[in-house]
Amino acid sequence: MGGEAEMKEAVLLLSGGLDSTTVAAILNSQGYSIRALTVDYGQRHIREIEAAKSVASHFKVKEHVVMHVDFSLIGGSALTDMSLSVPEGGTSGIPVTYVPARNAVFLSLALAFSETRQCNEIYTGINAIDYSGYPDCRPEFLEAFNRLARLATRAGVEGKPARVIAPLINMRKADIIRAGIAVGAPYGLSWSCYNGREKACGLCDSCLLRLKGFMEAGLEDPIDYENK
Amino acid sequence: MGGEAEMKEAVLLLSGGLDSTTVAAILNSQGYSIRALTVDYGQRHIREIEAAKSVASHFKVKEHVVMHVDFSLIGGSALTDMSLSVPEGGTSGIPVTYVPARNAVFLSLALAFSETRQCNEIYTGINAIDYSGYPDCRPEFLEAFNRLARLATRAGVEGKPARVIAPLINMRKADIIRAGIAVGAPYGLSWSCYNGREKACGLCDSCLLRLKGFMEAGLEDPIDYENK
Repeated sequence: MGGEAEMKEAVLLLSGGLDSTTVAAILNSQGYSIRALTVDYGQRHIREIEAAKSVASHFKVKEHVVMHVDFSLIGGSALTDMSLSVPEGGTSGIPVTYVPARNAVFLSLALAFSETRQCNEIYTGINAIDYSGYPDCRPEFLEAFNRLARLATRAGVEGKPARVIAPLINMRKADIIRAGIAVGAPYGLSWSCYNGREKACGLCDSCLLRLKGFMEAGLEDPIDYENK
Repeated sequence: MGGEAEMKEAVLLLSGGLDSTTVAAILNSQGYSIRALTVDYGQRHIREIEAAKSVASHFKVKEHVVMHVDFSLIGGSALTDMSLSVPEGGTSGIPVTYVPARNAVFLSLALAFSETRQCNEIYTGINAIDYSGYPDCRPEFLEAFNRLARLATRAGVEGKPARVIAPLINMRKADIIRAGIAVGAPYGLSWSCYNGREKACGLCDSCLLRLKGFMEAGLEDPIDYENK
């Protein structure tokens, strides 16, 4: 009687961090076939890329594309410019780890990728609650991007624009972790630290947010830390 | 009495084609110091990149950054997928040379670049009159991008967002060429052909638009063609 239903497909921007790993687990639990896109943007270390590959492999994604975009040519961020150091102990305002227009670039690449795969759902782990204050993580940024997506592509002209979906955008880190654990998120494979040493530093903004989240969730972070 | 006025600076997306070469000449004639950004996106040939370098050098730009973004990993266009051929003799609808979301990616990279250079004017040769029917060349696309730019960056949050300016968007090709010639556009250095042979093919959509423009302007195109 018409055969099996086609498997739902989603493009996922997979950084290998805690948030995108959570989204991978959620999509997997909902029966999605995942096409993962990781952007290697010349960040300080390749630990993130390795984490993304491990997570992709864990969920047996349909496809995992790693694109290189050399943000070090652009500079201006402690994550891509080796002459700037990553701050420890929390910051206020938009921090030096802000990478100019990063999410506009990443989502545009995901938009291109989604169009050639005839897939109109783009998932991202963007979060605007327990986050670092980056402007391109806010809901209004996402709305503006979705408006652009409708106008930027052939799919949009043909009435089937891709849409960016950020299921974690209004969740607290502790709730993200609880939700992830409930659907088998492999946090031991993920990597959040801005430094790329053997263990996570436990002191950078990204480690602090992650550790606070696990503490508030009453759960143990499975990765090793230098300081905790 | 206060010293010299600071030189105006503009970021320019420079492809090495006729339109962006025209914009370079216009900016130069208006006394701008140019920071050029060229995206090497794995297009069929490097003639375009060489043309961009020649044009940048001709105008003694302040800076010329060539970023590599491997669109062949994304595919779906005759310009980045060697298994598709470039059509000859004109097309209708959105052609196979359409590169998915290309201008969203290019403008996002230009936005990042402009932010680190504290420059809030981004120029592009995008044109929506004598063009190939690409959705991401239309004025409404540009408006949506400028809205995104205000939300995507630190500069936007601080009330100094970069703005994309497309001076040629409503001009016919013949008028672009006349305007360019008037300000010394070095069209002999530019390259429009989708093929990368020694001479321009004269048959692809991009050559046809260019040749028609020169003909209507009553001017001679200084580059060599296989067919004309």
